[in-house]
Order: sequence, then structure tokens, then C-alpha cells
Amino acid sequence: MKILVINSGSSSLKFSLINSQKSFQEEATGHIDGIALPSCIFIFKKNNKETTTKIRVKDHQEAIKLTLETLLKTKVIKDLKEIGAIGHRVVHGGEKYTAPTRINQQVIKTIKDLCKLAPLHNPANLTGILACQKILPKTPQVAIFDTAFHQTMPEKAYLYGLPYDLYKKHGIRRYGFHGTSHKYVINEARKLLKKKNAKIISCHIGNGSSITASLNGKSIDTSMGLTPLEGIIMGTRSGTIDPAIIFHLEQTLHLSSKEIYSILNSKSGLLGISQISSDMREIYAAYKKNNRFAILAIEILSYQIAKYCGSYASILGGIHGIIFTGGLGEKAFYVREKVCNYLKFLGLTLDPQKNKNCEKIISTSKSKIKVFVIKTNEEKQIAIETKQVLTKK
Amino acid sequence: MKILVINSGSSSLKFSLINSQKSFQEEATGHIDGIALPSCIFIFKKNNKETTTKIRVKDHQEAIKLTLETLLKTKVIKDLKEIGAIGHRVVHGGEKYTAPTRINQQVIKTIKDLCKLAPLHNPANLTGILACQKILPKTPQVAIFDTAFHQTMPEKAYLYGLPYDLYKKHGIRRYGFHGTSHKYVINEARKLLKKKNAKIISCHIGNGSSITASLNGKSIDTSMGLTPLEGIIMGTRSGTIDPAIIFHLEQTLHLSSKEIYSILNSKSGLLGISQISSDMREIYAAYKKNNRFAILAIEILSYQIAKYCGSYASILGGIHGIIFTGGLGEKAFYVREKVCNYLKFLGLTLDPQKNKNCEKIISTSKSKIKVFVIKTNEEKQIAIETKQVLTKK
Repeated sequence: MKILVINSGSSSLKFSLINSQKSFQEEATGHIDGIALPSCIFIFKKNNKETTTKIRVKDHQEAIKLTLETLLKTKVIKDLKEIGAIGHRVVHGGEKYTAPTRINQQVIKTIKDLCKLAPLHNPANLTGILACQKILPKTPQVAIFDTAFHQTMPEKAYLYGLPYDLYKKHGIRRYGFHGTSHKYVINEARKLLKKKNAKIISCHIGNGSSITASLNGKSIDTSMGLTPLEGIIMGTRSGTIDPAIIFHLEQTLHLSSKEIYSILNSKSGLLGISQISSDMREIYAAYKKNNRFAILAIEILSYQIAKYCGSYASILGGIHGIIFTGGLGEKAFYVREKVCNYLKFLGLTLDPQKNKNCEKIISTSKSKIKVFVIKTNEEKQIAIETKQVLTKK
Repeated sequence: MKILVINSGSSSLKFSLINSQKSFQEEATGHIDGIALPSCIFIFKKNNKETTTKIRVKDHQEAIKLTLETLLKTKVIKDLKEIGAIGHRVVHGGEKYTAPTRINQQVIKTIKDLCKLAPLHNPANLTGILACQKILPKTPQVAIFDTAFHQTMPEKAYLYGLPYDLYKKHGIRRYGFHGTSHKYVINEARKLLKKKNAKIISCHIGNGSSITASLNGKSIDTSMGLTPLEGIIMGTRSGTIDPAIIFHLEQTLHLSSKEIYSILNSKSGLLGISQISSDMREIYAAYKKNNRFAILAIEILSYQIAKYCGSYASILGGIHGIIFTGGLGEKAFYVREKVCNYLKFLGLTLDPQKNKNCEKIISTSKSKIKVFVIKTNEEKQIAIETKQVLTKK
């Protein structure tokens, strides 16, 4: 069965066509960026060959049509019937969805209801689902929620120190995100560790970053919270700060709530500290030239990751494995090195050369903690889970 | 020399008279609560005998007068000249004050300038200083800052992931509080540990709570931030939350910034979770009766303390000692037990009986980490530092 994986944003659509018969290999992938905007581009990739086209795309329905036409034209598929299922990434599944779910009218309604918890993401994800329903009404669709993997967290991890009613009546709690990525890399690491009750910390470090503590493949705590703003410093997001800073900025700098929201989400993080870029490649280039703020940004990032690893070690009662994944986590060996240096006291020893080469296992054979670099593959994980849902029935 | 220690709040004044010749023993102590209010009480304690009087006190100057008259009347002193110095607790010293400082006009001006960082505390502290200047103009006065001890933190610990200009131009950074308490108990623990470069985590757990990582007696990180709201769950304060929760409450519940501030500071924390009280004694009474929310509050508190200990272990590269202090930390053995259970993997073993008895050292002799219960004494520390400042001159 071929599975179309869709990740629909407010003005973008990413897709992958994945063949479940061929170990869930990706047969083609694409990205339409600028839906309903005057400048829109369409990137399509097949057999490692990438083409970029300028194009006008009216809405998500047109984007789906373009996707399907391109898959036919490039002979990735010969007939639309080859697409056996569509797997949609949906950001917020609230407490309702703890697993991937076959989409029906009720599910659509619930995803809509959850928009208040993810006002930027869920509506965009829904648009993709509705467009697919119109064009391929008979193809089964499955929703894979970013939050689902973290629904195994215990109360003490997901509750904030807030009035309990804010949780009970308004759902304010830690949900966590990047669930599909964490689940994928943790499962990969478990295969390599071959340990029962594996205590694994996965660090998904990218433009958005989150760290998850997992026991025996189940998430028990994670750094992102009600929203993806909490946790470590990210590309342009602040991560955790003293919440009173928001009131302080209102009172002393007379900033509006909207302005502060924009600062914390778009002008902070690695960009805010480095004053260079949110892109680690540019920061690292400056770091190598001894730019003080580039050094600071990398130091802070590594420091904060190490602190999370330490705190998760304490709730796991030790660590068997640490995973680095995500655009930055998979590449930035200098960050991994600094993080691992902090954790030497736990018996972690890094192989510097393996680390620099971004090998799958970068700890030495004597290290008490195995350190992994695992390329995340959310599309593959979504396809795997989409198939599982349909096979279960 | 006898030193008068003053802790001046907006409508209260606490004082201690401490004798520096007698190992800084407290000779008398008092608390005037309700200055300028219709109902005001004056508690005075000498030789373990406490008297409480209802009284009207117009302002802080009158409160100081009442203090001095009482000290004379009860023969704690025979003459005001016996008071060789006054030590004032001042909450916020910004980056300017890294040590206790003799008060002069310039210092008063700076404390005033720092009011924007501590709008609730510094003005009240100043009122006490000015009142003392009027009544005892010739007595040297010293300011001891709550933030000073933490000024040794490195940049990577005190900077938030915010635009760097917010720090540079507006002083937005982690300052930390409870410095006098942390310094006092860490010094006590160092005497007991007798270790060079001691790695000590001090947990000041009370109505307000903060946790500090110290290396060789110097603070290198701490859980409170720009304000005392950040960190672990406290009596009525939320501690760290996803900052986006504030925007979420504005948008979905249409709460004003002021209302949210009040929720996070006064209705959250142990009170918010337990729905019983902010007082751990009441929560523990309910805990023993298996009240679900009392259990939850205690579980969350212990969990969060353990996470901080783990994260600080990672930046210290291990732990030699953990201190519990503060009203709750010194008494709540059940919290200490849960925290220490999380840290067993580091070789920490608790002696349950010693813990229950709140002995000074509650770890076993074989434990790799020594665990201390040390009664904090901020007044004594303020007196010690006041004397040091005056002797240096």
C-alpha cells in the first residue's frame, strides 16, 4: 500500500508518498509554500532530484490537486487508487487522542474543538484534511497527533502549579509536542539498546526543540508544555522564562500582550542571543570566528539541554541512552560535545571522532550511557501508524 | 557590638537584636504587622517569651521608635548607643551590588532606581532605611541584598533566551533571591562537609521556595529568576509555567493581565493544586487522610525539587551535598524522603529515622551524597555581614 503523508500548515502543504511494502520508503516528497499568496513555490523531489517551480495556488484543495497531478505525471503512481490511505499530521489532540485515529465526522469536530489549544496549527491541519476528503472521498484518512505520544505522562509531570480548575475546566496542562519524532527515534534507539525498561532521553533539537524522558518506550515527561513555547531556547522562541517577565515588559516597557507574544516567539531564542540568525549554520560560522554572541548562544543551548538531561535522569532514576535528533541535533556535533561533557559524571564518555562524523552511536564502548544520533523521520512514522490503524480494523 | 537587623515590608517591620560578641546570638526579636492599618499587632520575643499587643502604628518611623523603646523598656539594651550598627535586608541589588554595602546617599539612590525590578519590595525596604536614618542618624547602616549572593552566576545561567537588548538595556535576566539564606546554609554545610570545591545544592523550601547550585560556596545557578515567581511550585505561587499560558488565559478566558498576575502569585502553587491551603501542615494533615489533591500537591512539589537537583547535578558535574532549609524544608520529612528517593541512582541513601527526626545529617554514613537539614538564619547572616562591612573599613 502507498500512503500519502500530509503536513498542512496555514499557507503551506508538505507531502510524502511512502510505500509500506518497501520498508516504508519515501518515493516522492514535495512542499508547496505560499498557498493563496502572490509568491508561491512548489518544490518536488523524486529519486534525489529536486525541482522548484514558481506557481499560483489558490487554496489547500488546489494544493492537493497539484500534488496528485504531479505524482501521476512523474509516474510515482499510475492511478490515484494506488494511494491506499492518507496520514495527516495534526498538532493538537488534547487529552482525547492518545493514539492515531481514523478520521470521521466526529474526529473532525473534535480537532475543531481543540483549535483553542492550538489556534495556529489545528485549523491549518483541518484544512488539509477537508481538502483531501473532497478530492479523494473514498480514501481512508488517519490523524496522527503530535501530542498523542506524551499522553502517558503522569499527573505530576503534566500539571502546572496552577489552580486545579484551570486544568479541569480549561484543559491547561503540559501536552508536549514532536511526539511523532520522539516516538520514532526512541523506538530506533530501543532496537539498538536491546534493554528492557530502557531509560531514554531524546533531544529533538531543530528550529523548534523539545526533550523527552521515556521509560520503556513511553513518554513520562517532556519540555514543551501547553504550547511549543516552553522548554529550551529554540531558533526564535525563548523557551522557558520567568513568567513574570511578561508582566514586567508590560509595565516597564509598556509593550502590548501581542508585541510580547511576538518577541517571545519570533525574536528570541538563538536569534535573540546571537543577534546573528536563528540558523545554527550561520551562528556556528560566527562561533568559529570567535564571535562572542555566537559562542554565548551555543553555550546557553548546550547548558540548557544538559540541565534537562540531568533533571530527566533524576525522574528516570538514571539514563541508558540519550538521542540527538532534529535538524540541529543530527548535525551540530559541537553542541552534542558540550552537552555530553556536562554529563561525564554519570559515566558518559563520548567518542569525539564518531561524534564529529555524526555516526549512529557516538559514545565509546565503555560509556555507561549510550549516545545516539538518529535521523528523525516523522513522515515514515506517520505512514507506519496510518497503516497500523487501518490494519487493526 | 549589638546589631539591629531590620526587614521592612510595605506594612510590616521585623527586627532582631543580635550580639556579635556572643556568637551572633539573638537577644530579642519582634514583628510589627499592620503599619498604617486599623488592625496592627506587635509581637515581641525575648528569652523565648512572646508577647502580642494590639497597637496603632502610623508609619515605619513610629515602628522603629516602638522597636527601640521596647528594647530599652525590656532592658535588652540600656542605652541606644549599644546598637553599633543596623543591617537592612534589601531584596533587589540588581547587578550593582554583589556584596553587603554601607548605606549612604548614593546607595539609597541606587536602591530607589532598582525599584522597577522589585516594585513590591525595594520601596518597602527603603522606608525602613529612611526611618532608621531619621531616628538613629549616627548609627552606621548596611544593606544586605537578597540577590547579591547570586551575582557569581555565569552568563549562560543568568541569561534568558530573549533578545540580548532586553538584558543589556533593561536588565532583564535571572537575579535569584533568598541569597542570604542560601549563603548561610551553604556555609554551614561546607563546615560539615570539609571538602574543597564542594558541590552543594541548597533547597530553601518555604512559602517562597528557591533552589541554588553552588560550587565552592559560590552560587552558579538558582531557580528564582527576574522575580521570585520562577522556579518550583510554592505556597501560592505557580513557579515556572509555559509563558504562553498567560496569553492563552487572556485570549480564551479573557482575563486581564492583572488578574492573571494575581492568579499566578496568590492562587496557585500548593494552594492551587491541593485546594486546601498554602500551608503544608494543613496539606499534610489531609495527605494522611488520603486526600487525593493533598497527595498530588506533595508529589508535584517533591518531583519538581528532584528535577532541579538533577539538573543542577549536571551543571555541577555531580553533588557532594544537598541541603534542605526554610520552614517547609526543615520540617517536611515526607517531602525530603520523596526527593531523596528520586536521587538514589546517584548513590544517595537516606537514613529514614534521622530524616524523620530532622537531624542535621539525614543521609547514611555510606551515602555518596550527604543530605543536610539546616535551620536557616537570615538575621544572623545579615548581622555577620553587617559587622564584616564595618570592620573592613
